[in-house]
Amino acid sequence: MRSKTRPFTRRAVLATTLGATLAGRAIHGAVAQTDPLPSWNDGSPKQSITDFVARVTTPGGTEFVPVEQRIAVFDNDGTLWCEHPMYVQLAFVLDRVKDLAPLHPDWKTKQPFQAVLEGDMRALAASGEKGLMELMAATHAGMTTDEFAKIVSAWLATARDPRFKRPHTELVYRPMLELLAYLRANGFKTFIVSGGGIEFMRPWSEPIYGIPPEQVVGSSIKTRFEMRDGRPILFRLPELNFIDDKAGKPIGINQHIGRYPIAAFGNSDGDLEMLQWTTMTGGLRFGLIVHHTDAEREYAYDRDTHFGRLDKALDAAAINKWTVVSMKSDWKRIFAFQ
Amino acid sequence: MRSKTRPFTRRAVLATTLGATLAGRAIHGAVAQTDPLPSWNDGSPKQSITDFVARVTTPGGTEFVPVEQRIAVFDNDGTLWCEHPMYVQLAFVLDRVKDLAPLHPDWKTKQPFQAVLEGDMRALAASGEKGLMELMAATHAGMTTDEFAKIVSAWLATARDPRFKRPHTELVYRPMLELLAYLRANGFKTFIVSGGGIEFMRPWSEPIYGIPPEQVVGSSIKTRFEMRDGRPILFRLPELNFIDDKAGKPIGINQHIGRYPIAAFGNSDGDLEMLQWTTMTGGLRFGLIVHHTDAEREYAYDRDTHFGRLDKALDAAAINKWTVVSMKSDWKRIFAFQ
Repeated sequence: MRSKTRPFTRRAVLATTLGATLAGRAIHGAVAQTDPLPSWNDGSPKQSITDFVARVTTPGGTEFVPVEQRIAVFDNDGTLWCEHPMYVQLAFVLDRVKDLAPLHPDWKTKQPFQAVLEGDMRALAASGEKGLMELMAATHAGMTTDEFAKIVSAWLATARDPRFKRPHTELVYRPMLELLAYLRANGFKTFIVSGGGIEFMRPWSEPIYGIPPEQVVGSSIKTRFEMRDGRPILFRLPELNFIDDKAGKPIGINQHIGRYPIAAFGNSDGDLEMLQWTTMTGGLRFGLIVHHTDAEREYAYDRDTHFGRLDKALDAAAINKWTVVSMKSDWKRIFAFQ
Repeated sequence: MRSKTRPFTRRAVLATTLGATLAGRAIHGAVAQTDPLPSWNDGSPKQSITDFVARVTTPGGTEFVPVEQRIAVFDNDGTLWCEHPMYVQLAFVLDRVKDLAPLHPDWKTKQPFQAVLEGDMRALAASGEKGLMELMAATHAGMTTDEFAKIVSAWLATARDPRFKRPHTELVYRPMLELLAYLRANGFKTFIVSGGGIEFMRPWSEPIYGIPPEQVVGSSIKTRFEMRDGRPILFRLPELNFIDDKAGKPIGINQHIGRYPIAAFGNSDGDLEMLQWTTMTGGLRFGLIVHHTDAEREYAYDRDTHFGRLDKALDAAAINKWTVVSMKSDWKRIFAFQ
């Protein structure tokens, strides 16, 4: 190694719809002229975020972190967008089965497809993990990567959340969008690290979150390279490649990012190991849990729910001094349309 | 999807030892005041590079590519650094076996270890893929990810190339370092996509190439997350995860980057599918092959060699109009020390 090589420096100014308002601001610890987190109520969680950012970005400070090491990882479902009454990707699966049903007449009497077509959630649940994998294979495999991206985009353009009657991409949390932009304005590189499908998120992560495809980590199925009509394609196979959940999250982070994040944001037990990996491996680190406490504006759930259970991670938050955000009391508004 | 979202824009200014000289230059197609590729002889390959960059970076041009889509992928062995007389990672494996031998007295009479300890390259080759996997397991697994990174860094600090008697990190191609910096100065994000080990490259890719760990794609073994003495670790397992070579390269690119590169750089048949994936999927794209033609300053090999065979990809270059660089005639100098 050439020890005289200068430290590698990088400055990334990201302008998104949201971030543009922050773009004029200095990167390093300047006093903000306007509140960078206007949807956050003043209080301990907001203070903990701005304190952390000030400490790691103040040049010459003992806790200064060089810009290339400012890696922040975000869970997606329940942390950046709404995961109730079911994961958005599951809603996609169910709709997709209905769309494809005319091509598969046998599905009418074949589980787990019959359960989906009849809206029988109990029978669907009874089909278990095996049933889910069959549904994933039928809806996520058997096409090229480009074709799948188009299917996802077309579905998102028309699908509506059953309660709010809005596109799922409008059910993203405004305070978290502000947080993403605030971190990026302070030199952070923001990544999604989600149990959801990596190829399900990439078609929209950049316009919605300002997170480019190469900064999305998620679960995946295997693909096969082949030449088709003289053109190279990747064909999606009905075979699991990687599950980016629980202990899989640190593995996915190491595989894709290759260095420790210094800040992690989650909302459920699926994020426990990611929060541990981020905050318990040395130096000043930041962990945050979004606690769903607002049944009126969104949902209230934690220890006893199917999607996004928050139990062990809530206990661990107290021990590890992770910031716990109450959506009800800490967020002025949840969605942009509210 | 919110169609009114502004296009995502990003500007990354990377300053490395090399890149610093380029940092003052405008990002978009400005006339260079000094030659950005001083180690390249004038001629068709150099011209093809600067023409391509001018075309994709000229605002308003029909071939303009937004900065976030300027993805360039580089093979490592034989493309960015010397791969003869053997892959550097193989030299690491052989040295590591010798270092570990005192802990394993049985290796003296057990293949493929015996072959390594006795320097019997014929017996080593005879052990085949199975033998290689045993060596990989013995040298690359059984420690944490942090421990492995330290082992690699310590080895690179002392290992010397047998012919040039220099650290392997000095056997990087100066013209390619200039090319990396030139592309980055023009808004490109540069990635390594190598058949080599992802964790073998990451400890030094940033100081040597200016390529951060999150932009390194490579082969990998599986890891397991666990808590050890109250601290989370990833333990490296003797189990293959992914081979990022040949048809694996487009798969690795899709998995890690999630969009098409617009430029690809390789030197062997292992890069054929990456070059196809990059250049045959629409729009103005750029493919380049480094042809090892200089036995005096480096090595001369192509169709008949064990490391870095260039045969099918050389034929494909003519058909697909990929730029073929002759190291002998197109590069003024190869290594910085020459």
